[in-house]
Amino acid sequence: MNEFELITTFFMHSSANGDDAAVVDTRPGHSLLTSIDTLIEGRHFRATDNAFDIGFKSLAVSISDLAAMGAEPTAFLLSLSLPRIDERWLMQFSQGLYDIANQYHMQHIGGDTTKGPLTISSVVFGQTPTEHILQRRGAQIGDAIYVSGLLGDAACALHDVSHDQTRLKRPQPRVELGMALRKIATSCIDISDGLAQDLGHILKASHVGATLLAENVPQHSSLALALTGGDDYELCFTAPKAQASRLKILSQQLNLPITCIGSITNTQQLEIIDAQNNLITIDREGYQHF
Amino acid sequence: MNEFELITTFFMHSSANGDDAAVVDTRPGHSLLTSIDTLIEGRHFRATDNAFDIGFKSLAVSISDLAAMGAEPTAFLLSLSLPRIDERWLMQFSQGLYDIANQYHMQHIGGDTTKGPLTISSVVFGQTPTEHILQRRGAQIGDAIYVSGLLGDAACALHDVSHDQTRLKRPQPRVELGMALRKIATSCIDISDGLAQDLGHILKASHVGATLLAENVPQHSSLALALTGGDDYELCFTAPKAQASRLKILSQQLNLPITCIGSITNTQQLEIIDAQNNLITIDREGYQHF
Repeated sequence: MNEFELITTFFMHSSANGDDAAVVDTRPGHSLLTSIDTLIEGRHFRATDNAFDIGFKSLAVSISDLAAMGAEPTAFLLSLSLPRIDERWLMQFSQGLYDIANQYHMQHIGGDTTKGPLTISSVVFGQTPTEHILQRRGAQIGDAIYVSGLLGDAACALHDVSHDQTRLKRPQPRVELGMALRKIATSCIDISDGLAQDLGHILKASHVGATLLAENVPQHSSLALALTGGDDYELCFTAPKAQASRLKILSQQLNLPITCIGSITNTQQLEIIDAQNNLITIDREGYQHF
Repeated sequence: MNEFELITTFFMHSSANGDDAAVVDTRPGHSLLTSIDTLIEGRHFRATDNAFDIGFKSLAVSISDLAAMGAEPTAFLLSLSLPRIDERWLMQFSQGLYDIANQYHMQHIGGDTTKGPLTISSVVFGQTPTEHILQRRGAQIGDAIYVSGLLGDAACALHDVSHDQTRLKRPQPRVELGMALRKIATSCIDISDGLAQDLGHILKASHVGATLLAENVPQHSSLALALTGGDDYELCFTAPKAQASRLKILSQQLNLPITCIGSITNTQQLEIIDAQNNLITIDREGYQHF
């Protein structure tokens, strides 16, 4: 089976034009956003993992980057390195891939396939009205800090195979939330490397500090994993306190917890305090890539 | 060294916004084109290859896809999987990468780094006036078929280390030619998998055939490698015969051979004939990815 047959057989939903490069649709008044993520066997997933899940997650993690900027996903490229042609694996992989792509009506506009260690790079495209792009900079002193969903479940599943694996294997990017936050949030990030580290990026980009109330962090497994575990793919964002009632309604509409976990300060530091108002120290700020 | 330090140290030319996704500039009246290519150690380059060359080539091959569509390169993403942090290697790699990026004033807008087998995915962006995109479809019966440069040198260098390695290690994408062909060519492709195979894509997409004069194929190493060797990154295109004089002037302006190698026919087949008008059969149509 050559590259062309492989693509026609397993990626039949591809709308690739067959030319050397793909045309990305752009909309007037909107910014085009793009992000690339690479998943590697043995690093981001196990060889024995379900291929559907691998296909699903490889796109989901990139879509999460779009969600963090309030973008509506529109299209993707996929680069796939395969040690061999395993038709069963490829069929399941492509089903997982298109399962999440179709949720957001994303077009598969192109890619590359090559022989090599199992590696998946997905490049996603999305659009946001230019005046409402969510960014890491923008948090204001006095803003409330929010997170969506529950944190730490993915990290818990990674450490304990008896734990529910759904959040780890099929993370659900918070696209609808990101789009709804365009006119509400002052800054936003997706939590891929752990809350403490990712909130740290907002603080650094916004030149502010924060006080985080550990007790308020939504989790039902472990506070440590909720603070430092990666792979949550929930959103962490800041918004003026006056937006609290709108966020409560939004949480109900999306059927997704949105929890206030602290506030932005002028300290330039992230202070995490417990119920007794004692400072908590965390050893490891989040997932390190090397 | 963590991911952030790595990026700041070696990819200091990066204009990444530090947000989850990068904004791609778009121009009214232009189509945004994108392409991804993945290079893998042991497959596309050797572990002992010069890191500057690897950086250069990893972007050059993607830029070549833009050139084939008449696009002006504007920006790129880079995903890099590294088995370890080798500072000397990374410095040389990034110098090669920015050497070619700076030739085209391309902005490095984002990427991903992760630990794993040495793998480089580059995603390039370029723009073409929408009405003048060069595509594979569009070749007309009676058009002349042209190629730029000399073919087969890269394949020859791959098989014979004593041969000049420049075309293999630092391929020069034909960006200026592609842009100049916007209003001249009826179809275009870059030769990455071998002339016979890549011209075959034009014929298939355009629903036409071709007669190719083997003697006219510009090469100084081997006709077989010129027809079927990969990695040339020259352009193969079709144009009405009336454009011959414009192409001659263009060839002089760009100081680049542009050679007529045959013409488009209504046979639906690619016929390659020698100087005695005998049909030549080729065993292997070009580089197969699996």
